[in-house]
Amino acid sequence: MPRLEFWYDFASSYSYLSAMRIEQLVAEAGIELVWRPFLLGPIFKMQGWNTSPFILYPAKGSHMVRDIERIACDRGLPFNMPDPFPAHSLHAARLAIVGEEKGWTPRFTKMVYGAEFGRGKDIASKSTLSAILAELDVGTFETLDASTDPLVKDRLRDRSDEAARRGIFGAPSFFTDDGELFWGDDRLEQALSWAAGCR
Amino acid sequence: MPRLEFWYDFASSYSYLSAMRIEQLVAEAGIELVWRPFLLGPIFKMQGWNTSPFILYPAKGSHMVRDIERIACDRGLPFNMPDPFPAHSLHAARLAIVGEEKGWTPRFTKMVYGAEFGRGKDIASKSTLSAILAELDVGTFETLDASTDPLVKDRLRDRSDEAARRGIFGAPSFFTDDGELFWGDDRLEQALSWAAGCR
Repeated sequence: MPRLEFWYDFASSYSYLSAMRIEQLVAEAGIELVWRPFLLGPIFKMQGWNTSPFILYPAKGSHMVRDIERIACDRGLPFNMPDPFPAHSLHAARLAIVGEEKGWTPRFTKMVYGAEFGRGKDIASKSTLSAILAELDVGTFETLDASTDPLVKDRLRDRSDEAARRGIFGAPSFFTDDGELFWGDDRLEQALSWAAGCR
Repeated sequence: MPRLEFWYDFASSYSYLSAMRIEQLVAEAGIELVWRPFLLGPIFKMQGWNTSPFILYPAKGSHMVRDIERIACDRGLPFNMPDPFPAHSLHAARLAIVGEEKGWTPRFTKMVYGAEFGRGKDIASKSTLSAILAELDVGTFETLDASTDPLVKDRLRDRSDEAARRGIFGAPSFFTDDGELFWGDDRLEQALSWAAGCR
């Protein structure tokens, strides 16, 4: 079964669009999905950016909000920009790493994005994250505790290093088995078609 | 008849993709097309960039080339990156301004993009531009001469100021009659549908 890697940062607005539809699309295409939470911040820093390009370049930021409003409306998806934007996504990313071994990262990811870009919540807040873990019923306190384990921090750091090494410069990004990189929610269909062998 | 404004810079690789397909799409949608050549350089300068983001951020640049290779292949369109990239697009843009009154800007635009991104030519070169004007049969010497007229230079400057004022930050960009801005070849279908009243 061909695989598609889905690389996302929890602060990324366009990754929200992909996270909420990718499972149905891979199921229809007969492709195995691999969720790859990572941190975009270190890559942005290497590019000389200390925050999101949507903040650094306000015209780009205004268009992004309007663009996602239009797309979300077409897809029947709620959309509210969180405050602050971009969110500090480190804690959510570490939790997603914890969930990988236990298998709840996909559900967690969709709930985090839903809280953040669906309802405008701050996903850096412990209460937002605790409520999500409670709803997942995965042991809130143990999981929060596990997310500060040095091994988890290292795994997230390695993951983000891997992203940079493989040429990722934004999110969402998709890799097919043969190493093709596709960037952006608007390239998801193309990535799926490539993964399925159409080229 | 609803209108769609197509804003492009001759150095923009993604504008090539739109220029080569937009006429058929507007014809099918019953929309009037307005060609709007402008210069993106001054806008990039305001953002602190002294060249294309595809040069400033090499990972983004590599992905752009591969992305356009894939798309061009799907569309049966030739694609060769010009050297140098980005091209110095000032002369081509001034010529396009001259052509607006005479009605040959659409044909000229497609020929410039075809030379640049189809065959990899340098569109800053006088011989490339002269050959295009000769093929258009619009009076090569008179047209080259007209393109250095202060009024033409002013019109191009005003056009580029208008782009910045209206929130354009990249190319291609599209405006519908109600002032909605759509950025990127991948938003062209959406812009057409919006222009046609679907929202």
